[in-house]
Amino acid sequence: MTEQIQIADAISRLIKAEDVLLLCHKNPDGDTIGSAGAICWALKALGKQAAVLCADGIPAQYSYMQIPAYTGQFTPRYVVAVDVASIQLFGDAIRDYTQRIDLCIDHHASNAGYAIETLLDSEAAATAELLYRLIPSMGVQLTPRIADCLYTGLSTDTGCFRFSNTTAKSHQVAAGLIGAGARVEELNTILFESKSRERMEIERIALNQLEYHFDGRCALIWLTRDQIAGSAVKLDELENLTSLPRMIEGVQVGLTLRQQPGGSWKISVRTQKEVDACAIARRLGGGGHSRAAGCELEGNLCNTKTALLAEVEREFAAMDKAAKKE
Amino acid sequence: MTEQIQIADAISRLIKAEDVLLLCHKNPDGDTIGSAGAICWALKALGKQAAVLCADGIPAQYSYMQIPAYTGQFTPRYVVAVDVASIQLFGDAIRDYTQRIDLCIDHHASNAGYAIETLLDSEAAATAELLYRLIPSMGVQLTPRIADCLYTGLSTDTGCFRFSNTTAKSHQVAAGLIGAGARVEELNTILFESKSRERMEIERIALNQLEYHFDGRCALIWLTRDQIAGSAVKLDELENLTSLPRMIEGVQVGLTLRQQPGGSWKISVRTQKEVDACAIARRLGGGGHSRAAGCELEGNLCNTKTALLAEVEREFAAMDKAAKKE
Repeated sequence: MTEQIQIADAISRLIKAEDVLLLCHKNPDGDTIGSAGAICWALKALGKQAAVLCADGIPAQYSYMQIPAYTGQFTPRYVVAVDVASIQLFGDAIRDYTQRIDLCIDHHASNAGYAIETLLDSEAAATAELLYRLIPSMGVQLTPRIADCLYTGLSTDTGCFRFSNTTAKSHQVAAGLIGAGARVEELNTILFESKSRERMEIERIALNQLEYHFDGRCALIWLTRDQIAGSAVKLDELENLTSLPRMIEGVQVGLTLRQQPGGSWKISVRTQKEVDACAIARRLGGGGHSRAAGCELEGNLCNTKTALLAEVEREFAAMDKAAKKE
Repeated sequence: MTEQIQIADAISRLIKAEDVLLLCHKNPDGDTIGSAGAICWALKALGKQAAVLCADGIPAQYSYMQIPAYTGQFTPRYVVAVDVASIQLFGDAIRDYTQRIDLCIDHHASNAGYAIETLLDSEAAATAELLYRLIPSMGVQLTPRIADCLYTGLSTDTGCFRFSNTTAKSHQVAAGLIGAGARVEELNTILFESKSRERMEIERIALNQLEYHFDGRCALIWLTRDQIAGSAVKLDELENLTSLPRMIEGVQVGLTLRQQPGGSWKISVRTQKEVDACAIARRLGGGGHSRAAGCELEGNLCNTKTALLAEVEREFAAMDKAAKKE
């Protein structure tokens, strides 16, 4: 079991450490990359060797942070996991480096406690939010480059300050990062105003197959395995598409059906807050949260849709009955 | 000519005023409605009569602010224009009330100075940002309702903190509004995660007609007048679609061609910062800014595309030549 440490302890560990390897989670997002990058640049400012390693590499869209990638240039003497909730999330490709994690810095309440010591702030919207306090306390100036790294982490994990995890604190940190020279205009364009051609193509296909049910209270999109493979869309871009049906005005239940390579249908249920997504998914053998849940069904498209819509109808009926009673 | 006044003067005018009519601009956005609503609720907190008037009414999506609409319930004795840069922007429907504007509160640098007195802060990202300072100085508490109104103005005018007008100050104000009880999660869903069925339909049509030119450096969408009319999409939703082609990775010039009721083609040119949109539009008789410009061309779709793409090609050629010289 890990030892939970305070921010002051983490600072003293980092100040003493030499030859530091920073590890990100696989399928990396802006927070794991940006936060690891920020610590890396802070350690370098203190004259140390440090570099960042991720099983999937550092995505090209984050190249503006110029993060030093680990390529074996030194033998790590202190290993820090950044924004990684469990050991499985590292990915097999970097297994040699995940045998001993000295320190984990994270904001996920679900952190599994796999590191020797863990600094966890589950109130923080992003690991970057926590680092905004930590890095200056290491005696390192928040340079524009470090501010870019932290803004990347904070803005991506909050969906550019849209998601429900965004707090007053998140905005205060953003203000501080802009003050420190984060290039927000440029970063926002890269991070939030950009879609790949593949994503546009899969969106086109999905919109052509958009269906409305129950007087527009439910919207459904579906994609076959051939359509998905043909579009060459990346997994995270496809995942992100599940928010599309619920986004439509009047839609309380948004459904996305994606056919898996084996032929089964992976179903994402997204709801507005008056409808319980988990109740729908659970009755079909799945589970999840109240507004985002999922399940997997075998069968052809027609049968799958029928089974799914029957459960949505049942949920609407229960809701409408409850509403009448009030 | 108007007299430019300071914030303290504006406060004393509002504190003395009675029976206040607050005017918004036509095609209202979140800032004109939210800011007018915030002042209205502040005046009511001081025991005054106040109400909001807009030529196009208060859009249903803003109903959560419960803004008192002006329906002739009192005779206005003091008229305040909120976030309205020029007199033409009021709209003819409320002409009876725009003969004498006692005070204008605005953040547009282009404000035409049509009111008797004007409080202008062109550094503010939104009129709401300016009011965040003004309202508490009126001796009014920032209630959750007023915070909702101001958050609406600030977040919509900054594209939820994405646009280039977003400053450290904007984030500080957002933090303060969350502290004052603004329901950001609910508001963000309404304001930023919602598209009409009509908008989805026109997006579908546009994506089916998406074309790439010049090795993907240029993306083009076009919509005929029949497609636009058939989709029943609202004007602002259609306008907003012009950002779609430029959003695609690798695209430096995004073009949107919308056929007008008379048959001509209205063209929007949106560019990444390395390309001059205005240069392209100007050579076709139009104009605009360096990254967003437009023009109007007569002719059939094929001729129009050819003429437009020829100018894009010329701009690329000039750019590439300049890049080689460097």
